[in-house]
Amino acid sequence: MPFELTKELTEKIEALIEEKNDQELQTHLEEFHHADIAEILDELNMEEATYIIKLLDSEQTSEVLMEMDEDDREKILKNLNAKEIAEEIESMDTDDAADIISELSEDIKTQVISNIQDKTHAENIVELLKYEENSAGGLMAKELIRVNENWSVTGCMTEMRNQAENVTRVHSIYVVDNKGKLKGRLSLKDLITAPSQAEIGDVYIRNVDFVDVHTPGEEVARVMQKYDLEAIPVVDEFGRLVGRITVDDIIDFIREEADKDYQLAAGISEDVDSNATLTEMIRARLPWLILALLGGFIAVKVAGTFEPAMENFGVLFFFTPLIAAMAGNVGVQSSAIIVQGLANGTLSGSVIQRLFKELGLSLLNGCILAIILFVGSHFLLGHDYIIGFTVSISLITVILLASFIGTFVPIILNHYKIDPALATGPFITTSNDIFGLLIFFTIAKLILGF
Amino acid sequence: MPFELTKELTEKIEALIEEKNDQELQTHLEEFHHADIAEILDELNMEEATYIIKLLDSEQTSEVLMEMDEDDREKILKNLNAKEIAEEIESMDTDDAADIISELSEDIKTQVISNIQDKTHAENIVELLKYEENSAGGLMAKELIRVNENWSVTGCMTEMRNQAENVTRVHSIYVVDNKGKLKGRLSLKDLITAPSQAEIGDVYIRNVDFVDVHTPGEEVARVMQKYDLEAIPVVDEFGRLVGRITVDDIIDFIREEADKDYQLAAGISEDVDSNATLTEMIRARLPWLILALLGGFIAVKVAGTFEPAMENFGVLFFFTPLIAAMAGNVGVQSSAIIVQGLANGTLSGSVIQRLFKELGLSLLNGCILAIILFVGSHFLLGHDYIIGFTVSISLITVILLASFIGTFVPIILNHYKIDPALATGPFITTSNDIFGLLIFFTIAKLILGF
Repeated sequence: MPFELTKELTEKIEALIEEKNDQELQTHLEEFHHADIAEILDELNMEEATYIIKLLDSEQTSEVLMEMDEDDREKILKNLNAKEIAEEIESMDTDDAADIISELSEDIKTQVISNIQDKTHAENIVELLKYEENSAGGLMAKELIRVNENWSVTGCMTEMRNQAENVTRVHSIYVVDNKGKLKGRLSLKDLITAPSQAEIGDVYIRNVDFVDVHTPGEEVARVMQKYDLEAIPVVDEFGRLVGRITVDDIIDFIREEADKDYQLAAGISEDVDSNATLTEMIRARLPWLILALLGGFIAVKVAGTFEPAMENFGVLFFFTPLIAAMAGNVGVQSSAIIVQGLANGTLSGSVIQRLFKELGLSLLNGCILAIILFVGSHFLLGHDYIIGFTVSISLITVILLASFIGTFVPIILNHYKIDPALATGPFITTSNDIFGLLIFFTIAKLILGF
Repeated sequence: MPFELTKELTEKIEALIEEKNDQELQTHLEEFHHADIAEILDELNMEEATYIIKLLDSEQTSEVLMEMDEDDREKILKNLNAKEIAEEIESMDTDDAADIISELSEDIKTQVISNIQDKTHAENIVELLKYEENSAGGLMAKELIRVNENWSVTGCMTEMRNQAENVTRVHSIYVVDNKGKLKGRLSLKDLITAPSQAEIGDVYIRNVDFVDVHTPGEEVARVMQKYDLEAIPVVDEFGRLVGRITVDDIIDFIREEADKDYQLAAGISEDVDSNATLTEMIRARLPWLILALLGGFIAVKVAGTFEPAMENFGVLFFFTPLIAAMAGNVGVQSSAIIVQGLANGTLSGSVIQRLFKELGLSLLNGCILAIILFVGSHFLLGHDYIIGFTVSISLITVILLASFIGTFVPIILNHYKIDPALATGPFITTSNDIFGLLIFFTIAKLILGF
């Protein structure tokens, strides 16, 4: 019963497009949910996908377009003229419409907007385009049910039915005063059970969670998750109700943010998925590798500075990858804890407390690892205990420094409003490699004297 | 207006507890949402938190307990006896109740269950405890509104009002047949607009998304996100309706999974957050560092095998951290793309296609990086072009192998039902370090002949 995208299905659809068998295509596609049609379209080539979009009515295709992969959607929209795009936009909710329009090139954008028949719809979209993409304003939709606190329950019911036509799902009814200021909310259940002579002012709930148009998306997600909200109203600078954000959009937002953080930690920028083109992949991955390579140059230079050690203590150079790897791993662990704590808002205590805790932990871990290394070096080096001792002492120091950098850098970045997730991955491993080697050779020089 | 946990607030609460000023405490805490009270409690010490839990009525505290940090909650529950815990459980939804009970030790568990007064509630909880934690059965709640397809709309309204008392939020009304099999769903809106003489069978929507009790949580999240569902019904092996999962639980699930994957990629196992104790932190982090250290031993051994090169080509040993770092970074990039593709179900094409794409990309990236390295080595090494050439050729080969391992390992793990996220982080960087060094020195030996 659940939908599965099989090869047979794709082939069948392709054959029907080939035959231009529009009627059969329509009957066939009608069975599917728009999210399933989007999955099919993502598999087809651009001409085939465009054919289907033009075939189905805009009521259905507007939903399909929204569910498609952004890159595939962009290609299809390039095949449509401004009037055709405007028709799709007409049946979309304002938030989706604004998302689509913001993906278009500047000149098409204006043409599409002027082609929208419903002028209120067009104005709403233009309003939404003003806000930053990841702010509450950029995430919200204008579609909502709004009642005045001075209305009667009966009058409200009639008015509400009119408004409900434009709203796919009614989560809450929002109550405003004469100036449009958000005063509270009302559940459908409350409205139905209230005496019909009552005024809205007597029955609504005054305690309502809301966000400001400028509230960052992360904060909206945090509030909605904390209070288990299915929708949250958005107000402007004057406290006037201007939109609402629904939970399905927030789920998408949470997922995208998590994906982005994960990719940054792995040294992949931009939002590429496994189906990205070669060029997109190179753009997302090569810069990080170049960064790591340049860091590697410095590491070569550092090791080169200690070349005199090679004559009598050449064995030290066997340990450089080990030291670098440990520095990198510890740094990534420390920074990941901080990055996640910042993202989830669970980071408590001062920076100093945090550093002390992390350094204490690293000292403990470092000592245990140093003992293992000392014992292990006996098997690797035989009775050359002074080298084993040198390497072990260096390891503790390197781990301490690595955890210091791993903790400190994301906190600093966050302080300067730079995404702390940048700090994990190649950035932290590369800098820890360099500092790790420098410390290692310096300590070795102090102990062994070369 | 939004709640903020200030130091003043915590101190005020602490002072009131100190004074045993119960009345003021109650009036003060009543203002807050239960999620806010949970935040306050997470800041207090165990005795203070327990004091508040005992002070407030169980209607409120059951919600507070659910919102608390798992570790803090566990400590508070240890201070309550079985009867007190049972009282809390009594006011909880079945899914929350089952979560709490599963955290208790075996002997307390039985005592708590036998102390629950509402026997149906107890039976429901026991049923939920049977299912695996991260399956649909483990995520669902028993609270839902269920109507029979043979009922009339009027009869249904009455029955529904009774059932609604136990359900916090009504998302959908589910329609079943005489055998309890899920047949479809009904929106509150449909029910209100239907003629009162109609039978449910005439008005319900037959097309309903559902999952099986054994469906993994990831799949439930995928379906709910894809179709923008706010709740999904769960059926047993016979297609009978046994529960429903709501979107707020799925958001928590998505967040936890994303956190887990992120941590695994950073070499942190178990679910620790930034406020974990030192012991928890060590348990989560030390094993990965030991793994990396053991891998480091092998790397030392590999480098040691090529000691003869040191006499004439000692400079090669300056490059080992660079080679290891590049192998690690490329491996993490490749595996992250696969792990994320698997998690989001967006991985298309065969394993062979995927490998070819990744290797093609790595060949391109590798060539660009090798050229940079060759040019860079001129500045590092002077006119020793043969070394620069050797290192550059090695780099391309190492990058190719690293991306092969990074792509292949998570696919293999996933095939054998092991979490592919294990493959990113220390596991992949450590193995790539070793193989990278082995290839580097082997190629150098072939070219330079030492």
